[in-house]
Amino acid sequence: MKMDPSDEQRSASSSSHVFVHNPHLDTMKDDILYHFSLGTKTHDLPAMFGDVKFVCVGGSPWRMKSFIEYIAAELAMEDPKSDYPNICAGTDRYAMYKVGPVLSVSHGMGIPSIAIMLHELIKLLHHARCTDVTIIRIGTSGGIGLEPGTVVVTKQSVDATFLPKFEQVILGKTVVRNTDLDRSLAEELLQCSKELNQFETVIGNTMCTLDFYEGQARLDGAFCAYTEKDKQDYLNGAREAGVCNIEMESSVFAAMCKLSGLRAAVVCVTLLDRLKGDQLSSSHDVLHNYQQRPQILVGSYIKKQLKAKLQRS
Amino acid sequence: MKMDPSDEQRSASSSSHVFVHNPHLDTMKDDILYHFSLGTKTHDLPAMFGDVKFVCVGGSPWRMKSFIEYIAAELAMEDPKSDYPNICAGTDRYAMYKVGPVLSVSHGMGIPSIAIMLHELIKLLHHARCTDVTIIRIGTSGGIGLEPGTVVVTKQSVDATFLPKFEQVILGKTVVRNTDLDRSLAEELLQCSKELNQFETVIGNTMCTLDFYEGQARLDGAFCAYTEKDKQDYLNGAREAGVCNIEMESSVFAAMCKLSGLRAAVVCVTLLDRLKGDQLSSSHDVLHNYQQRPQILVGSYIKKQLKAKLQRS
Repeated sequence: MKMDPSDEQRSASSSSHVFVHNPHLDTMKDDILYHFSLGTKTHDLPAMFGDVKFVCVGGSPWRMKSFIEYIAAELAMEDPKSDYPNICAGTDRYAMYKVGPVLSVSHGMGIPSIAIMLHELIKLLHHARCTDVTIIRIGTSGGIGLEPGTVVVTKQSVDATFLPKFEQVILGKTVVRNTDLDRSLAEELLQCSKELNQFETVIGNTMCTLDFYEGQARLDGAFCAYTEKDKQDYLNGAREAGVCNIEMESSVFAAMCKLSGLRAAVVCVTLLDRLKGDQLSSSHDVLHNYQQRPQILVGSYIKKQLKAKLQRS
Repeated sequence: MKMDPSDEQRSASSSSHVFVHNPHLDTMKDDILYHFSLGTKTHDLPAMFGDVKFVCVGGSPWRMKSFIEYIAAELAMEDPKSDYPNICAGTDRYAMYKVGPVLSVSHGMGIPSIAIMLHELIKLLHHARCTDVTIIRIGTSGGIGLEPGTVVVTKQSVDATFLPKFEQVILGKTVVRNTDLDRSLAEELLQCSKELNQFETVIGNTMCTLDFYEGQARLDGAFCAYTEKDKQDYLNGAREAGVCNIEMESSVFAAMCKLSGLRAAVVCVTLLDRLKGDQLSSSHDVLHNYQQRPQILVGSYIKKQLKAKLQRS
């Protein structure tokens, strides 16, 4: 078994296609994307998805439906009936919506949940023969030393020891994968936010954990055997390593997008400052307003890109 | 920071209450269970949940709604309007339903997703002052060397190296937790299945992985750098270690239930034999029939327990 990450990644940078790295797929007559309730035999994937240029993913199915409604209005591609059917209606694992070149997909919470979705999404884009695809995760996070509501565009995704790596277990052995994201895309998103001038946006490192409570040094879980000082020491250590926010999906997202040649970014709003507390006690309206910020920023970015493309053609 | 698992578990066995192990909770005026959209200030948790004796959890929200409808009919506690409102309707992270002493909660896919749910569920049961609670995960899995449709009651949950442990990262350091489940509960469930005599049920080890594709030696993910022989060698190694099936939540479920003194079991049906394939290509009807088996078994167990309790009183 050859598992050198540099080998895995070599081919991903040489073309604008979406890469799978799996010789077994060529031998399969049919590919069932089980958790999407889609398949190559049952669905015409090139016809359904061949024009996709932007994929936005986020944890909550409601938020991803709201995103497609928002982007449809932004791009003036609204359905007169305002009806955006869930393409994955045959399952409740993920929800998927599409408007023109924009696909919106939910991924649930945590690394395993987003990884299943990304395996099937990458195969979907490959089967649909998509090219030049940009993928952006829009999410929520806990901030470190930032005003709540600040949007963080991830420079590097780091693990719970502040190192920029993702450990994938394969056949019981650990393979370390790179978590670099596209630097130029992050800069373009920051520039977009400056032009919008509606909320604060920063570029910084994002810590990705396997747990929301003990894994993020919260004091309010069912179990906690450390003190407030232990928590502050840990979070300040993270801050010194350049960590601006904490969430639960960015590392495997970065690793898998890099392997498949997808231009990728992570844009998360901070719902609270973890140095000051653990509970999400802001009002529903305030939290809702914060959650719209990544979608406003990414919506603006997509609109700008499509406009520039129209002007070139 | 003291993190000896034996310390953590000592108090869990001495009473029938649901234990939190977190001194900080006593100092909080209010506890917001964010991912349930419930809280101690906004909801009367003892009134809503104080009578809960059985909690059933599973990945899919649809399946957990179907379970509550099934159990309501089994216990002859049907709502004449057949209306079982989602108690967590304020969020789309988890779905929760209740009939009499039975609570049904979805947990999404993967260890991080079920861990968030369990932290908030354990706090909920603690705040509601519940006693003598039994918790059962009903799920789906890939079997190893078993006829598809076989139900596996987990003896021990093992990791990807076949060891019975769960590694929890706390403040960047790894703490190893025990994944033992309740042996007598497993035996009672097996006995129940014998009495039902509707499908095959076995007791065996369950491997819990962080990934569905590379993590479970599948050949049909977006990435795969190993051969069919590598896969067979790995799965046969698992089989030799007593592994009957593979899923993605049992280890943290076992560890957290043990810490909190909940009597716990994992009951998963196998949807396919992984030695013979990777894709879930059975018909919708066949898969649906298989998925009902854990709920039939657990429904029968709960009915039997409640009947025995009535006879004692």
